[in-house]
Amino acid sequence: MLDTIKALAKKTDSKILMVVLDGIGGLPLELGGETELATAKTPNLDALAKQAQLGQVELVGAGITPGSGPGHLSLFGYDPLRFVVGRGALSAVGIGVKLGFGDVAVRGNFATLNAERMIDDRRAGRPSDEKNVEIVDKLRAAIPELNGVKVEIYTESEHRFVVVFRNPGTPLGANLSDVDPQATGVPPLIAEAHDEASQKTAELVNAFVVQAEAALKSETQVNGVLFRGYSDVPHFPSMGDVYGLRAACIASYPMYKGLASLVGMDVLEVEGHEDALEGKVAALQDSWDSYDFFYFHVKKTDSTGEDGDFHAKVHKIEAFDELLPQLLALGPDVIAIVGDHSTPSKLMSHSWHPVPLLIHSQYARKDAAQRYTEEEAQKGTLGLRRGTDVMPLLMANALKLQKYGA
Amino acid sequence: MLDTIKALAKKTDSKILMVVLDGIGGLPLELGGETELATAKTPNLDALAKQAQLGQVELVGAGITPGSGPGHLSLFGYDPLRFVVGRGALSAVGIGVKLGFGDVAVRGNFATLNAERMIDDRRAGRPSDEKNVEIVDKLRAAIPELNGVKVEIYTESEHRFVVVFRNPGTPLGANLSDVDPQATGVPPLIAEAHDEASQKTAELVNAFVVQAEAALKSETQVNGVLFRGYSDVPHFPSMGDVYGLRAACIASYPMYKGLASLVGMDVLEVEGHEDALEGKVAALQDSWDSYDFFYFHVKKTDSTGEDGDFHAKVHKIEAFDELLPQLLALGPDVIAIVGDHSTPSKLMSHSWHPVPLLIHSQYARKDAAQRYTEEEAQKGTLGLRRGTDVMPLLMANALKLQKYGA
Repeated sequence: MLDTIKALAKKTDSKILMVVLDGIGGLPLELGGETELATAKTPNLDALAKQAQLGQVELVGAGITPGSGPGHLSLFGYDPLRFVVGRGALSAVGIGVKLGFGDVAVRGNFATLNAERMIDDRRAGRPSDEKNVEIVDKLRAAIPELNGVKVEIYTESEHRFVVVFRNPGTPLGANLSDVDPQATGVPPLIAEAHDEASQKTAELVNAFVVQAEAALKSETQVNGVLFRGYSDVPHFPSMGDVYGLRAACIASYPMYKGLASLVGMDVLEVEGHEDALEGKVAALQDSWDSYDFFYFHVKKTDSTGEDGDFHAKVHKIEAFDELLPQLLALGPDVIAIVGDHSTPSKLMSHSWHPVPLLIHSQYARKDAAQRYTEEEAQKGTLGLRRGTDVMPLLMANALKLQKYGA
Repeated sequence: MLDTIKALAKKTDSKILMVVLDGIGGLPLELGGETELATAKTPNLDALAKQAQLGQVELVGAGITPGSGPGHLSLFGYDPLRFVVGRGALSAVGIGVKLGFGDVAVRGNFATLNAERMIDDRRAGRPSDEKNVEIVDKLRAAIPELNGVKVEIYTESEHRFVVVFRNPGTPLGANLSDVDPQATGVPPLIAEAHDEASQKTAELVNAFVVQAEAALKSETQVNGVLFRGYSDVPHFPSMGDVYGLRAACIASYPMYKGLASLVGMDVLEVEGHEDALEGKVAALQDSWDSYDFFYFHVKKTDSTGEDGDFHAKVHKIEAFDELLPQLLALGPDVIAIVGDHSTPSKLMSHSWHPVPLLIHSQYARKDAAQRYTEEEAQKGTLGLRRGTDVMPLLMANALKLQKYGA
């Protein structure tokens, strides 16, 4: 399909704004109740929905809970079952670290271990970014290299960090099992190589875990490390190449910036802390004339869901709604509101449920959907679709796709 | 997709109950009227539907009328265009006959032929099971072997029987045309081989037809045989292997038991005659602790449709509805109500129309569908889907699938 789209894509002056409300889909706390989206007061989204077409999107497939990487790749039009990117590579690219052939990037979580080395908290109480930097500095001093391989340690945010192993001459494999058991009350796992080339990587990872715990012995909360997602550098066709778009990313968390840069977007500077919504709007306004596709990421709709805080998620939705008029004031030819996956507060995790999709342009048909909610989206004329359908629909609504065949 | 599901599946204590109401989808007798499901009084299904998510399922593809084999395989998650199993193999396995490499199983119908050898009734007036046994005994005596090949003849039920040809040393092919013209007023067809390996099988089949008619000359109603569906033994990955499930089949008709055993389910004993609904409930109750997936089959919703008896189908739906509270009392974490195809009384046959799908779990969104009917199902948030989506959705709702990607 990418080849077909590439053959049909044409450059025009029209502008597309894709707003990704991370983890936006939800669930009612009690069966038959309302979701976070349906509970939120969203006058601006409601008004937009009345003039737009809605539908539901499954990012990977029926019943499949998407990670953020596959969820976003699907929205950008890349089949996530075909285009696979490890979280380590995403994180590394997102903090501006260039990966070369044979390098391996590993995504780490700081964790809290108890006296028996059992995991008490897989996120070490979500330390502040400052604490994260302090811990990373300790680790850098303690582990400059391992078995002759250079070790780079980078702070990401809160409990997240990234390690890059570079072994010039002998490429490292990235096919090994996780250290993170994704459970508490159990010890960290021993990484095991799934192929010959990853044998050395597994040794490095396991040695890192031991030395990091030794270096963090005096810490009470941030005293362990968990690894999950190892990756070498992937090569994808760029959005410029496929769609002929000058594409820009407006996001504040490293992973999303990393993903956007992997598909060839320019990653714009955003001022402010954490989700930095006002900074994102400013970045959008400042760069409006320079691009014809904007990926605008809102993170807190996901984090509040992961925290299991229904009302906080409702508030984050309402905060975005307040912002929406500033986005619309720029006059995008096409605006889409969508999510990369659902994160119901009830589940405190990503989920398989479809996300609502809203597409507004001059070429929308009227439909029965009156709000941007899960239930109303079902009434929309866009139907239930795969995430990879979104970009072709946006391109079409922007009149950027030629006719197929004569 | 099976590989992806297999990689994500995890074992948990949750239990899934998949109820297959055979041929459940219907049609109104007059355009604009109500279907069998909409006509039936189903207070228990209605109450469940209000708390569940609904959708529509196409088992094979748009406009494709599924046989029972492909319909069920699709529900169990096996793409029926890729996983092909002949009805003969299904029937043979269903009556406990083991097929080896090179054996061919053939599914037969007893038929009524007139004096000109034209087919009057393709089901010989649906003889009793006792009559079936009597006829099979006659045939066994008359045709112990053909051209040096061992012939095994098995009774199935009513007008159905199975023939297994075993030719040790030289495998038989199963690629030949049907004897059953699927029409009345015409004679049985001559089977024709579609490949070299099936040449001998075609000779055997055609010889069997001639000798069987000779042996049944004195019969007035059951005096001919029709063959449809030739198969060698298929090899599928088991549901245990793909989903990590301990899966059990609760069905009373041979074909469904055969199918379930082909995908690795344990086939439970069911007491009682024909559909034996109470016996099925007892089997479910007795084995509840031993499995985490149950396939619960209800047959009469299909047979009444095939008989063209609208009101009988309505009554069979109502009979299932009365039973439903006993199923719910077991407290399944996930319950699905679905069909393997539609069998509208108006058509007196399977049809291509989608079947309604209901999924109930703690992780259901509210939707506008208020009853388990074809029309209401369209209002459900599950949308219109392929049958192969059902198992991933059930696994997801049972929290038995890990996240895809980071």
